[in-house]
Amino acid sequence: MSNFRNFKMVDYVVYGRGSFNQLDSILAPHRNNGAPMIFLVDHYFEHGAVTGNNKPLIDRIPVRGNDKVIFVDVTYEPKTTQVDKLAAELKETFGEVSGIIGIGGGSAMDLAKAVSLMMTNPGSSADYQGWDLVKFPGVYKAGIPTLSGTGAEVSRTTVLTGPTKKLGMNSDFTPFNQIVLDPELTSNVPANQRFYTGMDCYIHCIESLQGTYLNEFSKSYGEKALELCQEVFLTKEKWDDESDDKLMMASYAGGMSIAYSQVGVAHAVSYGISYLLGTKHGIGNCIVMNHLEEYYPEGVAEFKQMVDKNNIDIPTGICQGLSDEDFNKMIDVSMVMKPLWENALGKDWEKIITRDKLRALYEKL
Amino acid sequence: MSNFRNFKMVDYVVYGRGSFNQLDSILAPHRNNGAPMIFLVDHYFEHGAVTGNNKPLIDRIPVRGNDKVIFVDVTYEPKTTQVDKLAAELKETFGEVSGIIGIGGGSAMDLAKAVSLMMTNPGSSADYQGWDLVKFPGVYKAGIPTLSGTGAEVSRTTVLTGPTKKLGMNSDFTPFNQIVLDPELTSNVPANQRFYTGMDCYIHCIESLQGTYLNEFSKSYGEKALELCQEVFLTKEKWDDESDDKLMMASYAGGMSIAYSQVGVAHAVSYGISYLLGTKHGIGNCIVMNHLEEYYPEGVAEFKQMVDKNNIDIPTGICQGLSDEDFNKMIDVSMVMKPLWENALGKDWEKIITRDKLRALYEKL
Repeated sequence: MSNFRNFKMVDYVVYGRGSFNQLDSILAPHRNNGAPMIFLVDHYFEHGAVTGNNKPLIDRIPVRGNDKVIFVDVTYEPKTTQVDKLAAELKETFGEVSGIIGIGGGSAMDLAKAVSLMMTNPGSSADYQGWDLVKFPGVYKAGIPTLSGTGAEVSRTTVLTGPTKKLGMNSDFTPFNQIVLDPELTSNVPANQRFYTGMDCYIHCIESLQGTYLNEFSKSYGEKALELCQEVFLTKEKWDDESDDKLMMASYAGGMSIAYSQVGVAHAVSYGISYLLGTKHGIGNCIVMNHLEEYYPEGVAEFKQMVDKNNIDIPTGICQGLSDEDFNKMIDVSMVMKPLWENALGKDWEKIITRDKLRALYEKL
Repeated sequence: MSNFRNFKMVDYVVYGRGSFNQLDSILAPHRNNGAPMIFLVDHYFEHGAVTGNNKPLIDRIPVRGNDKVIFVDVTYEPKTTQVDKLAAELKETFGEVSGIIGIGGGSAMDLAKAVSLMMTNPGSSADYQGWDLVKFPGVYKAGIPTLSGTGAEVSRTTVLTGPTKKLGMNSDFTPFNQIVLDPELTSNVPANQRFYTGMDCYIHCIESLQGTYLNEFSKSYGEKALELCQEVFLTKEKWDDESDDKLMMASYAGGMSIAYSQVGVAHAVSYGISYLLGTKHGIGNCIVMNHLEEYYPEGVAEFKQMVDKNNIDIPTGICQGLSDEDFNKMIDVSMVMKPLWENALGKDWEKIITRDKLRALYEKL
């Protein structure tokens, strides 16, 4: 008898231009006896970066009482040490908090999810990297994307780089209690960044739709997300509000599509370069996708069209000069991602993907 | 400042052929100290009707301890009196119950939602017909569709016919805690019934996509649901497992599309005939849609193609011989549905839809 995942959904979703203005009233019922709300905000906003309505985002955060805004450095992706340190500081300063609100891209949202869980679970976040290891629900947590594409807003994981691996805290306790999808917040993202993060969604879809795990639930979400990506990155002549609206829905649908599917080769390989070189997830996926004709011929051809049409540079030669030890480390990290490989290539994936083959691929990047 | 609905999602979704077999383990953590699970099952299954795997559905329900299976007569749509009676009987017999599990079409699922709420809310369900009137969360509730199209599995309402109106208990407490989407359960539905209920979804989509309330969230769900309906009712040459898979996802996506939209003219008018004549929702919508060229020209043309292709008879002449009082009653019920009319025709809908115009439409049905 096959067993299907019982997928935990985000509890509440609000979608709309300007819905960020509702945040104060959304948080109000979740404030417990003076314990603060903690806003983990992408450091991009620290010096007054504005969003769609020309007001600095930081001036719009509904800070009350002893609430705290913490700017998080997301130059590199979240680390288990960073999560543990944040949670420890919050416990020391406040004892308890009412909630953790992540505002930013996938890194800020994943940090918020992980810190929420580490407010109530003992030990280190590294202890929970894997599937269904988290023991207790975290504190209230909300995710507010200011970049579209990662799907972190709906996923049941929070991807962390730990002492020995890059792997998520994948559990039913991980999804947000609330997400606020306000496409205005994404209107001033630089075009390169927007593309890299948008491609995370596009690549999700290709990997999910061509994966062996696919069912009709994931297919319908994946097809819709793919179509939205194609509209904004290929069909439309210029970027406008509608593009932001659609890419935010693409990100959401792309994330939902992973419920009964998995990502595939691009993600499995890019985890290696992120782990070793600190390459951010979006651009890392693009660097890898550029060389995956063998696995996703049509998807890679369309990806290259999107790169051209949007005048994007994809870095090359990032693995030049690496040592054997470095390559072996990347291969180790990548080979751990068994469900990704199995989804991409089937049960016998280990016969197809050898260490040598993976080494040759890394050398091309 | 506009205010966007903060949409309460279903807590858990499992989708897959055979996922009904997981029901026992899904319910286990929700059983409280010997309080029973109550299964409200569409009376269609009472005499052993089988589902996809050729076993009678009733033999597959995971009855434990003092659990109770209650077959519900859904010849007519759920009434507030029926809900109140069921809740009162359960309280008298068991005191407390662990949960209410609705297995069937939209009526059985709506009954389950309403009875769950009336286990904890005082008074009559008629007191809560409207928007956000429900005071307390209900007991644990799960929905398991055996018919696809209504979207009741994801909606935040439960449509009830009360002493003075047909209107839902529309609230954040209304959505299910769990839905089990197993397309095998729909494989033996008679073609006519399947069509009428499927058209509920198709008509949702047309009304939502052409409505004035539409945003990108609802649009992306509505477009996907519409596409899936077109595939199963127009493109595919014969009905097969894939058709059941797709129509189940169409129903889910069509329901989600209502989050930021509304249904429209077909629903507003069909509520009148359901109220007066007891016409079931699916067929009622079809009877009305047949005459809505003025409002949805392309949708009605495509609907008629689907009727032809699937060899379906849509009843006509159902309002012949009705009295002025009858017509007035239907018009009253329909005119109460302000959000539906406003979604369909804009703020000034009352200038477009007069009582006379509505009377002329009812006379055509």
